[in-house]
Amino acid sequence: MRDRIGIVGGGQLGRMLTLAAKPLGFHVTVLDPGVDCPAAQVGAAQLAARSDVVTWEIEHIDAATLQALQEDGHPVEPSPATLAMIQDKLEQKRFLARHGLPVAEHAGFDAVGDDESVEGRVRAVVERLGRDIIVKTRTGGYDGRGNFRFDRFTERLAEGALDLDDLYAERIVPFTQELSVVAARGSHGDLAVYPTAETVHVDNICHTVTTPARISAGQEAAAREVAHETLQLLGGAGVFAIEMFAVEGGVVINEIAPRVHNSGHHTIEANVTSQFEQHIRAVSGMPLGSTESRAPAAAMINVLGRRDEPLTLEGLERVLAMPDTHAHFYGKSCQPKRKVGHITVLGDSVEDALRRAEQARGELAI
Amino acid sequence: MRDRIGIVGGGQLGRMLTLAAKPLGFHVTVLDPGVDCPAAQVGAAQLAARSDVVTWEIEHIDAATLQALQEDGHPVEPSPATLAMIQDKLEQKRFLARHGLPVAEHAGFDAVGDDESVEGRVRAVVERLGRDIIVKTRTGGYDGRGNFRFDRFTERLAEGALDLDDLYAERIVPFTQELSVVAARGSHGDLAVYPTAETVHVDNICHTVTTPARISAGQEAAAREVAHETLQLLGGAGVFAIEMFAVEGGVVINEIAPRVHNSGHHTIEANVTSQFEQHIRAVSGMPLGSTESRAPAAAMINVLGRRDEPLTLEGLERVLAMPDTHAHFYGKSCQPKRKVGHITVLGDSVEDALRRAEQARGELAI
Repeated sequence: MRDRIGIVGGGQLGRMLTLAAKPLGFHVTVLDPGVDCPAAQVGAAQLAARSDVVTWEIEHIDAATLQALQEDGHPVEPSPATLAMIQDKLEQKRFLARHGLPVAEHAGFDAVGDDESVEGRVRAVVERLGRDIIVKTRTGGYDGRGNFRFDRFTERLAEGALDLDDLYAERIVPFTQELSVVAARGSHGDLAVYPTAETVHVDNICHTVTTPARISAGQEAAAREVAHETLQLLGGAGVFAIEMFAVEGGVVINEIAPRVHNSGHHTIEANVTSQFEQHIRAVSGMPLGSTESRAPAAAMINVLGRRDEPLTLEGLERVLAMPDTHAHFYGKSCQPKRKVGHITVLGDSVEDALRRAEQARGELAI
Repeated sequence: MRDRIGIVGGGQLGRMLTLAAKPLGFHVTVLDPGVDCPAAQVGAAQLAARSDVVTWEIEHIDAATLQALQEDGHPVEPSPATLAMIQDKLEQKRFLARHGLPVAEHAGFDAVGDDESVEGRVRAVVERLGRDIIVKTRTGGYDGRGNFRFDRFTERLAEGALDLDDLYAERIVPFTQELSVVAARGSHGDLAVYPTAETVHVDNICHTVTTPARISAGQEAAAREVAHETLQLLGGAGVFAIEMFAVEGGVVINEIAPRVHNSGHHTIEANVTSQFEQHIRAVSGMPLGSTESRAPAAAMINVLGRRDEPLTLEGLERVLAMPDTHAHFYGKSCQPKRKVGHITVLGDSVEDALRRAEQARGELAI
């Protein structure tokens, strides 16, 4: 039985995975920082020796190290090959498109014909996609870092700050809302999909998550269908978040996170099984739990650091005085824009829950 | 702000308190074993130095040590004086009776008149209460240890195994059910009372807890009223469990536990605020949370060790396949009758939840 779980990454997601695993009787070992430096590769081997299964909470880790562990016979979940595919956003887009899933039009900066010049490679992309594009780093970008609108991209390119081989472009999708569907794949390929959530980003950082998403029945059906189909294609067991755009008549996949995700934090209180327990169930070979909602609506708001200073809990007493309001802190010191905690509010409507979540956030002197 | 919490006692209750305190951002230090040995008194001082408030998860600890800490200016919650009163079950009964709360008729083995003989002291109790009594140790008894029916009491007394000064007697109460009301007292004297639960003991050890209790509206009102009145009398902040007997037309208090309690474990999933978070809120000076139920009914069953061996999670996959069924393990090795975990099931009716909880317990090879 896989009752010793090794987690690569020691951030808040690893902390919440650990808090979910302990009551179920699992032993958890956390390896931090990621396995992308030589010392950490030794750490990964030690982690595997202490664990019946290795998983991760951050995706910017060395997939090759995990693949080597797997080849040595150590169970790794989800599949490191899937991780490697997802890590390269262009590969990810191509994979999804190849399987008929809806994604934005996209292109790499490949040479067309004999013209291998930078100008020629850019021109080929513009001819195909136009200028209404976002240029993104293929690997390693997060929270919007490494994303450029076309004008900024050409500026940075002219400065010699970019390498076209590391980049790809995608057409900007005119969307009404950003959505996220958190879903799990069990060890026997069984799936469990959480209700679709609506996400709002500020400065490219997740600000609020609300559920149910205020989208049409057709869009909701499309979101669930797309999440189902995507998870059937991915290898290994675990929780994934499928971030999408709501567009007229349906959805378009923005990107896949191969891990528990900020857009699923509300599931701790709002659903029968939290995304964290779900991931532990999935990677350990346990059956998946119910994703049913416990309340008509939920809202989650991130608590970001504003200044460089230790976290204080000033104002928490006012937050905890609010009905069905749940505070989570991650034990991290504050830095500007660093996620140091979150607040989840359950309620009868999204509007009501969100209003109270914003109010609760305002009470905290962070 | 009281954001560093010291807990005396490192059993499962301390573990679950810690798991509830961490997400709220509190720092927790646990002192184990209890403060009833000289070395532990030093430990208690160190615990106090590291904590903004000291509390406990076991009640058989040295109240005098905690009182000394309090006199030195360290906040201790709930009040050590209340702990001392509750620890002496005869004092507890007298305290409750003095305040008009319903308890079984009781008596200490005091000398009556000039007759200070053992026989005279026993005779005086029998004349007052009859032979349909239970003789209990005043301090230190738990899970029925130190309780004797009259015949067994006289046998043990004749063997010279008992000291009457340590004992008291109470009339056996003919009850239909055993009940428990878990309730919290906040730092400003505010109260929060959980729905009444029904408890079933096997061999004097808590076996199952179900809620709502299947009692009359009058008994339910009496149980809540008695819990309210009791908590108003107790000193300090924290969670208490008021164990009661359901009798014709009302309730009788059996005993008070001055701490989080086995009869409140289901509140982790079944209520908006768990008893563990509630205790942390209470002792830290935070407002109390809602005790509202999240489901129509809940059942909790204890998982006891059967043999001396390490805990295995065999069968857990079948438990986790059951709907709205939640397993908790305490990280303890198995010993016969040792509480190593519990299972909580939420459902539409007590009968349904209890049936599934018993079934889930049966799946575990412990």
